[in-house]
Amino acid sequence: MKQLVNAPDQVVTEALQGMALAYPDLIRVHENPHYIVRADAPKNGKVALVSGGGSGHEPMHGGFVGLGMLDAACPGAVFTSPTPDQIQEASAAVHAGKGILHIVKNYTGDVLNFQMAAELLQSDGIEVRTVIMDDDVAVKDSLYTAGRRGVGATVLAEKICGGAAEAGASLDEVAALCSSVNASARSMGLALGPCTNPETGQASFTLGENEIEFGIGIHGEPGRQRIPLQSADTLTEMLMIPILEDLPFKKGDEILLFVNGLGATPLLEQYIVYRAAETVAKKHGLKVSRRLVGAYMTSLDMAGISITLLRLDETMRQYWDAPVRSPALRWGL
Amino acid sequence: MKQLVNAPDQVVTEALQGMALAYPDLIRVHENPHYIVRADAPKNGKVALVSGGGSGHEPMHGGFVGLGMLDAACPGAVFTSPTPDQIQEASAAVHAGKGILHIVKNYTGDVLNFQMAAELLQSDGIEVRTVIMDDDVAVKDSLYTAGRRGVGATVLAEKICGGAAEAGASLDEVAALCSSVNASARSMGLALGPCTNPETGQASFTLGENEIEFGIGIHGEPGRQRIPLQSADTLTEMLMIPILEDLPFKKGDEILLFVNGLGATPLLEQYIVYRAAETVAKKHGLKVSRRLVGAYMTSLDMAGISITLLRLDETMRQYWDAPVRSPALRWGL
Repeated sequence: MKQLVNAPDQVVTEALQGMALAYPDLIRVHENPHYIVRADAPKNGKVALVSGGGSGHEPMHGGFVGLGMLDAACPGAVFTSPTPDQIQEASAAVHAGKGILHIVKNYTGDVLNFQMAAELLQSDGIEVRTVIMDDDVAVKDSLYTAGRRGVGATVLAEKICGGAAEAGASLDEVAALCSSVNASARSMGLALGPCTNPETGQASFTLGENEIEFGIGIHGEPGRQRIPLQSADTLTEMLMIPILEDLPFKKGDEILLFVNGLGATPLLEQYIVYRAAETVAKKHGLKVSRRLVGAYMTSLDMAGISITLLRLDETMRQYWDAPVRSPALRWGL
Repeated sequence: MKQLVNAPDQVVTEALQGMALAYPDLIRVHENPHYIVRADAPKNGKVALVSGGGSGHEPMHGGFVGLGMLDAACPGAVFTSPTPDQIQEASAAVHAGKGILHIVKNYTGDVLNFQMAAELLQSDGIEVRTVIMDDDVAVKDSLYTAGRRGVGATVLAEKICGGAAEAGASLDEVAALCSSVNASARSMGLALGPCTNPETGQASFTLGENEIEFGIGIHGEPGRQRIPLQSADTLTEMLMIPILEDLPFKKGDEILLFVNGLGATPLLEQYIVYRAAETVAKKHGLKVSRRLVGAYMTSLDMAGISITLLRLDETMRQYWDAPVRSPALRWGL
C-alpha cells in the first residue's frame, strides 16, 4: 500500500506539525506528549472540554479544537489510546477553574487511560466529569470494547457541548448534556474496503471482490456480518432500520441526520447515501431539521460510510447552531 | 471496484438530490438540466459568478455555491463537460443585471461549451466575461487540453472573485481579478492510485505496486512521468520546485499555500505534505500568510495530492478573508 509518509514512526508527529502550521490562528500543538489546544487556551470562565483517542480518525478530534467545540484533543499513535499522562497534561493546560469534561469513546484502552488521567487530575484538585460515548448499534461487545463502541455521536456531542460550555454552562450541565446526546443518538456503519495503518503498512482486513463489512468499527474491527455489496439505497435502509429501532426513534421526533464518510468514499457517494437516509427517515415520520454530511470521523483510507441519528431537543438544537471555529467545523464566525 | 451507488446512470442526479436535501438553507438544485444555484439567487446588485465542469471533483464546484463564492455551478456527467444549454440556463437563472463571469478550467470540452453558452447569453443581451484557468505546470498539452490544465487555482479564484463580487465589484473588475489570480498561481499534483468512474466502473489507469504518476491530471490523465514512490518530503519538494520556478515565485513574495487531497488520501498524509510544502516555501524565502488544506478538488477516490501556490496581493488577501457561506467553504458567517 502506497502512502505519503516519511518515517512510519513519525507519522503522527509530522502530521501534527503540519496541522500546527496550517492553523496558526486556531490551535497550538504541544509535543512530548502530543496534544492540541485552542490558540486562546486556557479560556477563562468556561468549562474545558477534552477528548482524544487513537490517530487515524482525522479530522476527529484535533480538527474539532477551537472556539465553540473542544479545548484540547489528545491524539494517540494510530488506532492507539492516548496515555494517562498525555491526557492529564492536556487537561491541565486548558483548565480554567471551572472543571473539565472528558468526552471518551467507548474503547477499553481509552476508557482506562482517561479514567487514570481523571484520577490524577482530581488528586490535584481539578474537578473532572467523564462521559463515555457508546452510540454504535452494530455490536454489543467488540474486539476493543466491553459494550457498544463510540462512533459518530462523538462529533455531535463535542459540537453541542462545546456550544454549551462556550455559553457559560456549568460542568454538571455540560456533562448532563453530553450524556443526553449519547443517550439520544444511534449509529452504524459499513465498509467496502480496509484501511492501511501507515505506522505498520498493514491493511486492517481483507474483503472479497463483491463483499462488504456490515456494522464495521472505525479501526476496521469486525461488524455484524460480511454480506454482498448491494445498492446504495438498500444498504442505507439496512443501516437505518437497526438505528431507528434501537432508540427507538418515533414518528414526529426531530432529528439531526449525519452521514459520515469513513475516508476514501467520494462525496458523490456520500450524497447518494444522504439522499437515501433522509428518505428513510421521512418515511418513518421523522422531522430532519439539522444535517451533517462529510468525512468527520474517518478510518484513514477506508472506503465506507456511517450514519448517525440524534434526536434533538431545543437545547441541543440551539448549541448545534451556535458559532464554532475549528479546523474542521466552522460557522457563525 | 465497489461503490455506494444505485443505477450507474443516476449517480450525478441522485448525488445532486442528496446535496439539495443536505443544504436546504444554502443552495437549490435544478434538474433537466442540472445546475446548482445559491438559495437567494438571483442576487440583486452583484455580478453573477458561474463555474462548472465534469462531476467527480466534489466539492468543486457545487460545494462552492453560496454567499461570497459562486452563484451557480453546472455539473456535467462524471468527468464530462456540462452542455452549452445547461450553462446558459444556469447563467440566466442567476443573472441579476450586472453581467456574468464564467470561470472555466482549461479542458477542451469545457472551453468550447462555455464559449457557446456565452454566445447564446450575449445574443440575449447578457454581458459575459470568461476567464480560463490554466495553472497546472505539469504538462504543456494533455489528453484533454490544448495548453495547460486548470486545477487547484480554480478553487482560490472562485473564493477570491466571489468575495469581490459580493462587495460590489464590476464585471470588468471581477474578471480582471480572476485573470490576475490565474496568472499568479501555479499547481502540480501526483497520484498513488487511480480513481474509478462510478458511471462506467472503470479504473482510470493502472500503476505498479511501488509506482506513482507524477504530474497527474484530475481525470487520471497522464502527467510527466511514472516514478517510484519516495518519501513525502522528497515528493513534496519535487512538486514544489517546478511550481516555484515557473511563475517564478521570488524571495519575499507573500503566498497562499493550498495542499489539496485528491480523494482517498487521509488528512494525516495531507498534513505531512503540508508540513513539507510550507518548509520548502519558507526555505525559498516566501512568506506563507494564508493556507488551505483538505480535499477541495478531488478525482473521486484517487489517492494523491496536489499543491497550489498563489502569490497574494492585498486585494486577493482581502477577498480571500471575506465571509463565505457555501457547503464546502464557510467562514465569517
